[in-house]
Amino acid sequence: MSDSSEHPAHAHPRLKQGKGRMEAISDGVFAVAMTLLVLDLAIPFTKGTRGDLLGALVHEWPGYLGFLVSFATIGAIWLGHNTMTEYLERVDPVLLRLNLLLLFFVCLLPFATGLLAEFMKAEGAERVASVSYGILLLLCSVLLSAVWRYAVRAKLVNPDLADDEISLLTTRLTPGLGGYVLLILLGVFFPKISVFGYLLVAVFLLLPFRPTLRRGDRRRR
Amino acid sequence: MSDSSEHPAHAHPRLKQGKGRMEAISDGVFAVAMTLLVLDLAIPFTKGTRGDLLGALVHEWPGYLGFLVSFATIGAIWLGHNTMTEYLERVDPVLLRLNLLLLFFVCLLPFATGLLAEFMKAEGAERVASVSYGILLLLCSVLLSAVWRYAVRAKLVNPDLADDEISLLTTRLTPGLGGYVLLILLGVFFPKISVFGYLLVAVFLLLPFRPTLRRGDRRRR
Amino acid sequence: MSDSSEHPAHAHPRLKQGKGRMEAISDGVFAVAMTLLVLDLAIPFTKGTRGDLLGALVHEWPGYLGFLVSFATIGAIWLGHNTMTEYLERVDPVLLRLNLLLLFFVCLLPFATGLLAEFMKAEGAERVASVSYGILLLLCSVLLSAVWRYAVRAKLVNPDLADDEISLLTTRLTPGLGGYVLLILLGVFFPKISVFGYLLVAVFLLLPFRPTLRRGDRRRR
Amino acid sequence: MSDSSEHPAHAHPRLKQGKGRMEAISDGVFAVAMTLLVLDLAIPFTKGTRGDLLGALVHEWPGYLGFLVSFATIGAIWLGHNTMTEYLERVDPVLLRLNLLLLFFVCLLPFATGLLAEFMKAEGAERVASVSYGILLLLCSVLLSAVWRYAVRAKLVNPDLADDEISLLTTRLTPGLGGYVLLILLGVFFPKISVFGYLLVAVFLLLPFRPTLRRGDRRRR
Repeated sequence: MSDSSEHPAHAHPRLKQGKGRMEAISDGVFAVAMTLLVLDLAIPFTKGTRGDLLGALVHEWPGYLGFLVSFATIGAIWLGHNTMTEYLERVDPVLLRLNLLLLFFVCLLPFATGLLAEFMKAEGAERVASVSYGILLLLCSVLLSAVWRYAVRAKLVNPDLADDEISLLTTRLTPGLGGYVLLILLGVFFPKISVFGYLLVAVFLLLPFRPTLRRGDRRRR
Repeated sequence: MSDSSEHPAHAHPRLKQGKGRMEAISDGVFAVAMTLLVLDLAIPFTKGTRGDLLGALVHEWPGYLGFLVSFATIGAIWLGHNTMTEYLERVDPVLLRLNLLLLFFVCLLPFATGLLAEFMKAEGAERVASVSYGILLLLCSVLLSAVWRYAVRAKLVNPDLADDEISLLTTRLTPGLGGYVLLILLGVFFPKISVFGYLLVAVFLLLPFRPTLRRGDRRRR
Repeated sequence: MSDSSEHPAHAHPRLKQGKGRMEAISDGVFAVAMTLLVLDLAIPFTKGTRGDLLGALVHEWPGYLGFLVSFATIGAIWLGHNTMTEYLERVDPVLLRLNLLLLFFVCLLPFATGLLAEFMKAEGAERVASVSYGILLLLCSVLLSAVWRYAVRAKLVNPDLADDEISLLTTRLTPGLGGYVLLILLGVFFPKISVFGYLLVAVFLLLPFRPTLRRGDRRRR
Repeated sequence: MSDSSEHPAHAHPRLKQGKGRMEAISDGVFAVAMTLLVLDLAIPFTKGTRGDLLGALVHEWPGYLGFLVSFATIGAIWLGHNTMTEYLERVDPVLLRLNLLLLFFVCLLPFATGLLAEFMKAEGAERVASVSYGILLLLCSVLLSAVWRYAVRAKLVNPDLADDEISLLTTRLTPGLGGYVLLILLGVFFPKISVFGYLLVAVFLLLPFRPTLRRGDRRRR
């Protein structure tokens, strides 16, 4: 590791390709995870009451809410991942593995979303479902942040980046860790309310009017 | 936003990569959504009558019709998205989020198609299934159109494009909004007929003999 | 159409990107279709006899045979598609739509494979399953061939290609049409035997020792 | 074959594109296989006891262990595939087919993982499930190794690679064949223990602190 950071740009020219495939596998997993979320919606209906479809659709609201939260969260992680790889100059073996760990937790999201939809209607079970869902969202956030922090420490990022730009990105790629911890605790007592909280965090992460835009101003000074 | 439009081509050179990943995640979602449509076909048969397979296949016609309409619609959206990104010079944070919203509705299409297949055979339920399917198709069209209109307004498109080319593309990327609204209303009274209507719209959107081809003539003048 | 063929290489420089996205959506659909085939294998076991797993695995042989044939066929189509796009210089609206039609039939393959696995054990049903499976394989082959023939006629292929190279490729990309027609007829009377026939065609299509290699000799003369 | 190796770099310039699509279909299959693993987790819960969700989650440990092992194994195969294609200069028809065979076994992994999760709780069945899972992992490893060995023999790798670098990579891309054979034998007698063994092999394959890093030192001498 320390060897390659002595020759930041030219030491391993081939590892630029490694970055391309890291993006390809990540985009693949993000796309499939987004689309698989919907499978957990489809299942309840096959056993549903045929007569009152509108009532059945309304009755299934926890499933739709979970789908919305999970889609928004995967979307926010994708946006963060996208921003991160824009500034990555090269990859190294540790980064590829940290990224695989992030994808591992993303792959679990459709399962956790299905659990949430299935058990939000049952007393007791909703607590376990909500807390384990929150822990998974937290782990995804921690890993996205860890990938970026490692990249900065191992000098894999674009050397033209100023220090304040890096710290700005570090802030952006640390999405709502505190918020998730609070919501997990809240979920022990009020499972349903915490899911709305996860939605709020996801919406907040997706809002584009944030520090990034100010970056442009800074650079021109 | 306003900053970057002052330096249209060079302000954020890195955001060209953002475009590549926007295409990658979109193609991934389109491909998975197309292929998942078929899962809703497979389910009814596992409980089906083993003896009369041909009869069972014929009996499941709403499922096949829904599969056909949804595949054709995703195909048409992909073609429009493809045309759009050909003319995109760069992306910005708002565009990436509008695109995610488009993908959100595309991800819901396999679910809505499954609903349609399941409930087209039941009185009453078919109305809700047909109308909600139509609303989803409308939302996909509106979002595809919104992504392009935003790109034009935020000056993200190729600066070489003439104004009449842009307005031609705007027309092309506004596929059958009026048609969808009419069919949704029709679906309240004649749910089955409206699904054939959605097929007609999809076929119309897929026909290649449209204004695009005339674009070539215009350019040479 | 005729306009663009007057300026073969420079008329629509942007359409080179269209080729990239045509490859991306195709590779996505091929990859998802290959992986979804396995879902039809998983279903029977969840209701299976827990005691005698080995016996259950052996009893499910039509499912495994179908999986093998479908995977080999999608693999052969991917190889042909790959060869074809290597020689494509640009794409046009008609080609993109023909390619979508090819992907439509590829998306149906996991469904047809599931039908085959489910109904190969029932008298009567196996005939319908085998014949419709064969018709689908035939349609995939016809479409792959049609995409290439259209590309040649619309002068979308690399202009450096000699006529004998083109006709060689046309032969290669017309995989076993005759074989499929014979096997579909055979399937009416001997459904199980015809599935082994489809496997033979797929193996034949996958064998690398074919005219392509001789192309190298020709060029050096 | 022998023809093209006489002109290593220029004989088939188009086959560089073939490499891009080989990577695209592989990344697609790896991403979908990773994400489909989770579907086998979701099934047991829909019939599960709604009251005691935590107990049900704990009871399903073989499913989670299998998911973990399979994800780690696919991740390790992806890393090896990634390293391999970095050094590939071009592809040839045989290499593409060997790669398809590797993808065939990767596609079977979600099915074998589901078998493992389903049958780990039943006497007798766990033996068949564990042994067939191990054989599949072994086949994936053998194929990854075979793709690389063929590429070296057919002179498809970067000609700048020194012989000791090639033999180092050959060692790296032969991941734990011996370990898998031992664990398959162990699985006949102690099925549950062997699954933990597969996890150990996967963790060992994923550890980044291995010969690769020393490669950098060698080059600089």
